[in-house]
Amino acid sequence: MSTVKIFDTTLRDGTQGEGVSLSVEDKLKIAQKLDSLGVSYIEGGWPGSNNKDIEFFLRVGELNLKHAKITAFGSTRRKDTLAENDPNLNRLLEVGVKAAAIFGKSWDFQVHTAIQTTLEENLAMIYDSVRFLKSRGLEVIYDAEHFFDGYKSNPEYAVATIRKAEEAGADWIALCDTNGGTLPHEVSAIVADVRTRVSCPIGIHAHNDCELGVANSLAAVMAGATQVQGTINGYGERCGNANLVSVIPNLQLKLNYDVISGEQLASLTSVARYVSEIANMHMPINQPYVGTAAFAHKGGIHVSAILRDSSTYEHIKPELVGNKQRVLVSELAGQSNLVFKAQELGLDFDTGNAQTKALIEQIKSMEHQGYQFEGADATLELLMRNAYGQLEEVFTLESFKIMVGKTVNQPVVSEAIVKVRVHGETVYNAAEGNGPVNALDNALRKCLERHYPDIQNMHLADYKVRVLDDKDTTAAKVRVLVESSDFQSSWSTVGVSENIIEASWEALADSIRYALLNQTPAEIRTLEHREPLGIVNH
Amino acid sequence: MSTVKIFDTTLRDGTQGEGVSLSVEDKLKIAQKLDSLGVSYIEGGWPGSNNKDIEFFLRVGELNLKHAKITAFGSTRRKDTLAENDPNLNRLLEVGVKAAAIFGKSWDFQVHTAIQTTLEENLAMIYDSVRFLKSRGLEVIYDAEHFFDGYKSNPEYAVATIRKAEEAGADWIALCDTNGGTLPHEVSAIVADVRTRVSCPIGIHAHNDCELGVANSLAAVMAGATQVQGTINGYGERCGNANLVSVIPNLQLKLNYDVISGEQLASLTSVARYVSEIANMHMPINQPYVGTAAFAHKGGIHVSAILRDSSTYEHIKPELVGNKQRVLVSELAGQSNLVFKAQELGLDFDTGNAQTKALIEQIKSMEHQGYQFEGADATLELLMRNAYGQLEEVFTLESFKIMVGKTVNQPVVSEAIVKVRVHGETVYNAAEGNGPVNALDNALRKCLERHYPDIQNMHLADYKVRVLDDKDTTAAKVRVLVESSDFQSSWSTVGVSENIIEASWEALADSIRYALLNQTPAEIRTLEHREPLGIVNH
Repeated sequence: MSTVKIFDTTLRDGTQGEGVSLSVEDKLKIAQKLDSLGVSYIEGGWPGSNNKDIEFFLRVGELNLKHAKITAFGSTRRKDTLAENDPNLNRLLEVGVKAAAIFGKSWDFQVHTAIQTTLEENLAMIYDSVRFLKSRGLEVIYDAEHFFDGYKSNPEYAVATIRKAEEAGADWIALCDTNGGTLPHEVSAIVADVRTRVSCPIGIHAHNDCELGVANSLAAVMAGATQVQGTINGYGERCGNANLVSVIPNLQLKLNYDVISGEQLASLTSVARYVSEIANMHMPINQPYVGTAAFAHKGGIHVSAILRDSSTYEHIKPELVGNKQRVLVSELAGQSNLVFKAQELGLDFDTGNAQTKALIEQIKSMEHQGYQFEGADATLELLMRNAYGQLEEVFTLESFKIMVGKTVNQPVVSEAIVKVRVHGETVYNAAEGNGPVNALDNALRKCLERHYPDIQNMHLADYKVRVLDDKDTTAAKVRVLVESSDFQSSWSTVGVSENIIEASWEALADSIRYALLNQTPAEIRTLEHREPLGIVNH
Repeated sequence: MSTVKIFDTTLRDGTQGEGVSLSVEDKLKIAQKLDSLGVSYIEGGWPGSNNKDIEFFLRVGELNLKHAKITAFGSTRRKDTLAENDPNLNRLLEVGVKAAAIFGKSWDFQVHTAIQTTLEENLAMIYDSVRFLKSRGLEVIYDAEHFFDGYKSNPEYAVATIRKAEEAGADWIALCDTNGGTLPHEVSAIVADVRTRVSCPIGIHAHNDCELGVANSLAAVMAGATQVQGTINGYGERCGNANLVSVIPNLQLKLNYDVISGEQLASLTSVARYVSEIANMHMPINQPYVGTAAFAHKGGIHVSAILRDSSTYEHIKPELVGNKQRVLVSELAGQSNLVFKAQELGLDFDTGNAQTKALIEQIKSMEHQGYQFEGADATLELLMRNAYGQLEEVFTLESFKIMVGKTVNQPVVSEAIVKVRVHGETVYNAAEGNGPVNALDNALRKCLERHYPDIQNMHLADYKVRVLDDKDTTAAKVRVLVESSDFQSSWSTVGVSENIIEASWEALADSIRYALLNQTPAEIRTLEHREPLGIVNH
């Protein structure tokens, strides 16, 4: 079984992606996760480019990483200077790393256009820079920028550049498809040719501009590359880098390379979601292997079949990458989807009876109004329990009012008044908040906390608003999704209204109802230790 | 130049994707766009599965399509029955289409598990069903479900199933990687083998479970397939279908196949965004070829280089697919990004002067507070114009107040009071709205409409809320992005606050300021005809 090393550049190339911005703390947290996932190299940043990256390198020692080698990024020396005097190269030494990745030009066009020097001087820049870093004891990954474009334009020169790096002692030569325009069959042929012309181990650095970043990485490995560079969730400039979250299971589960351990692979989903949380980037639900929809089944026929044997519509067992099977409830689905949900909830679901028919009608009508239960399992569970008389009403609304006022140069003020009935008693409370939804949440909690002191352990983890196109209705509606967490789990609820406050109230009220499900008033739960940053697992 | 036909299944397989739900009107609008894009087949739905799909087929004649053949989807006959009596097959005839795509089983395991019959009966089901539809004059695309898994498990049987379809007169045999688990080199080898064993034209139907849907489609075409099935933006069950929006330019621009015309290709970005709007699905900004970040440049070095020659960091000219280059302003960027923006705006941007330094400091500080200008070009433009004294203040806020009240069983009530100064005058107005932001918007417009009657032509097109992780601050902040349109263009603004109403106000106020830029009070603009559903072009 051949080994492939993973070179992660989420913290460097990943931050070039639109919307991706990481603080030093964020980078340290992600580095810790990458190490536990089992990557071999973590490219932490470009110390020559900004101070935040320098701070990362100075602090990363705190982490005590077990597996990954911290790597700093830089470029070859400037033209017509000495490597020893190059501030950028010296910065790589100053930050105290054991490995450095430096990029140089492979494409004759780029030598002339971008750095404006001669082909000979470019070769000297590569040789001197690699040699300098090797002489100071670093492991050197030479990134051959635009290698594939360069090879297509002038193969002899492109190969000459990497031979220079090899001659100077580079430990790795990473071939970069910098613009992301190369196709897999070209990558195969070029990597195979390169392998006959240099003996240094080869890496692949692919981008996703043709939606082929993963395919190009696999093609390179099958042609003999033994290092794959990429990022978690494919973050990166333009269309992103090769997505390691897909590359790793493809190499390991489909092509039988030795990449990371089975246990590490089973953490893939949680690592991918953790990084998306820290980077504050929305994870596409249909992301391969790790998205919440990656093993979700909607069509009635498919659901019937997976209830018999899951391999009929699943290419791998979701548990191998730490994901899980889901069944979606939607207009399109047959009753088999609701049956599946009912089984999960332990409800006795008789498809023939009147309660079930009424429930299906209610769900259809709510979907028509704009509710979506695919992302709001907790609201769906409340509806199902209610239909079967298995839901005790914790509280009922009598009225609420919110006010937000702002005068120029004064802080904004938000207040809410809530009146609810709890256990036969009318409770009335007011609260302030950072905003109107927070004020509403605070006032509602004040109404409930005497009966349910546990309520203080749950909090609103995410709040999403979507304006629905007024496709079928006259006024635009707003759908609010609320995700809440306590110390052990998280759950999602939905509200729909023309009014964002009313929609928020609905989702908020369901969230609290769900949290208090199965709790007798004033019961105290035992709390377990909370994961940092509360990763969402469903 | 070989021809490849595009078989679009956005309206059928695409709607199996989580969160994708299309009304009959939506489907008709999308069919019109697909036709103008130049696809050869539009699979409209499964008439045997639901009434919405039947209505689509009955109404699609209204569209007068120029190019695409409307295709209905179904399955082979049930086991142990006659094709003539099969309700599902008869439904395909009743909806009046000229082409039908029917799927049957290729995988011995599936024959036993999913339909629970003998291998012989499955062959008869395929033969009878294709024969029946051919005898009624339809063009028949036979979809060999799970073909690649079937071939890997029992190649002789898998090939026998498609030979049966060929023998019965099928016009096309589409090989389906139903579970999305096959790799490109396997697709190449299997398609090449199939081509030696049947003479019928071959199609490929790939899924994206390994992030290889596009790569598998290309591999099949290079091995001799001449039809590609897929969906716009890759919508579809689980991780989606092969994304035609990437497949088409890859085939046409990179592999020189004849797929659609150059003019049609230049509409690709607008078609992809149109379909995402209609489907109410968020388009990932980093989507290859058509995403707003697909040709966006963030790194300072890259920006300097593309200012010299755009092919240094772009694999194609974005105009070929109707997209455009963008330069992002972010913490990471050098001054060259701001210079690029200033050039776009025609501002005289002197990087050395005090105004510029103050502007850069202001932008950095706002980014630190949670503002993001990458998705809010209009707010950035206002800041830049303001820094250079090129922004006339249209109005200034004195105060606002909003109230939302709800009593059980009564409709919710939203009111806003706004006090602003406009042209030296204090204007004070109140308004109701569907929700608080709408009420605020209405009240502000009332304050301005006497001076700026034009304001009635702009409207809020989208409204997004993001709760920012309280990573560096003590209280969670909310970022609101507002997209506004008039009849000709659209623009985006941003607001950040702990309070959703205040953040909305900021974005709303900037949106109106931007709309009124360069307008003298009471000036009337000539309005051009508005595109249906106002596609957002930036």
